[in-house]
Amino acid sequence: MTKLRFNIAMSLDGFVAGPEQSQENPLGIGGEELHEWAVGLRAFREAHGKEGGEESPSNAVIEGWFENVGATIMGRNMFGGGPGPWGDDQWTGWWGDEPPFHNPVFVITHHAREPVEMKGGTTFHFMTEEIESALEQAKEAAGEKDVALAGGASVAQQYLAAGLIGEMEISLVPILLRGGERLFDNLGDRDIGLEQIGVVEAPGVTHITYRVA
Amino acid sequence: MTKLRFNIAMSLDGFVAGPEQSQENPLGIGGEELHEWAVGLRAFREAHGKEGGEESPSNAVIEGWFENVGATIMGRNMFGGGPGPWGDDQWTGWWGDEPPFHNPVFVITHHAREPVEMKGGTTFHFMTEEIESALEQAKEAAGEKDVALAGGASVAQQYLAAGLIGEMEISLVPILLRGGERLFDNLGDRDIGLEQIGVVEAPGVTHITYRVA
Repeated sequence: MTKLRFNIAMSLDGFVAGPEQSQENPLGIGGEELHEWAVGLRAFREAHGKEGGEESPSNAVIEGWFENVGATIMGRNMFGGGPGPWGDDQWTGWWGDEPPFHNPVFVITHHAREPVEMKGGTTFHFMTEEIESALEQAKEAAGEKDVALAGGASVAQQYLAAGLIGEMEISLVPILLRGGERLFDNLGDRDIGLEQIGVVEAPGVTHITYRVA
Repeated sequence: MTKLRFNIAMSLDGFVAGPEQSQENPLGIGGEELHEWAVGLRAFREAHGKEGGEESPSNAVIEGWFENVGATIMGRNMFGGGPGPWGDDQWTGWWGDEPPFHNPVFVITHHAREPVEMKGGTTFHFMTEEIESALEQAKEAAGEKDVALAGGASVAQQYLAAGLIGEMEISLVPILLRGGERLFDNLGDRDIGLEQIGVVEAPGVTHITYRVA
């Protein structure tokens, strides 16, 4: 059964980006520390086309992010902005010529645009309709596989608030950002039930997977 | 080396008590769910003088709370209020005749009062001075052992903000309280460095221990 799932790094005080986010500093002040546990690892380097890297229980976690994923959903900031105030029709996002998704990516945006086909199996589709409709199309594209929600936080919040997330994995990082963007804000009134289904302890991070009801 | 340590149950969205806390409902709406993982367990029942109970990796965690503790610090609400608006000099708190601490307990309060000696080695001392001074006296009482901070959140925040916590263990519970009292609020400007030093996965909860710098 195709489900919508996402993973995100969160500080111990609940932030997925630090204060004063900007286009130059999309993770806000201190936000890069959210990913320090990952950048030197073998699986992280591999996903970005590089060799070598450290061993850690986190490698299997990172590999899991890409397993059984048939389509991806992301917000326009995660794509890299545009078209619109931040870009133009030539702008193909900040993921490079061969983005690491290798499947159809559905970008939630207010700006209609023709699909953009990249190398390696990634095609960006720009979705201006309701998030429910974007999910339906992503599920259809995914076939038997899952749909991965790549972020950012506001898109994750919208899907959580709508009760459409099946599973989420929080990589809990031992830092206090003290301000910024909280993952669990703007969730509306719906009851969101969580079941803890897996924990991985690794250097500098604890990965916890929850089934969402 | 004697250190100040504390453990607390926190919802995935960062709350250690739900909204609308009151004397009748000190954990606020939904706050009792923070402790659901614990109440049926052998070690929890044992700490409250009861027999039986379930097995879980959480039992060793709960037992650890009581190991190597020579003195305890808590806020007045954790003691049970009083003397003052909520009680009188006869009120010995809500921990019963034989409180589960079995060591000197230093209660942070604005109201001076003579010490109260309970059964089983617990004596409540009421501290009206600065938190630093209360900690010094607790450390002296603890000897070679640690000082446990039993809560509540506002006392934990004061000691965190003052840079006096040595170690904390967060029992992260898979619930979203959506409002209430956050552990990591009111921390002032001091940098608080954390090092993840242990993780225990258990049914309905993940316990993570951090060294605090």
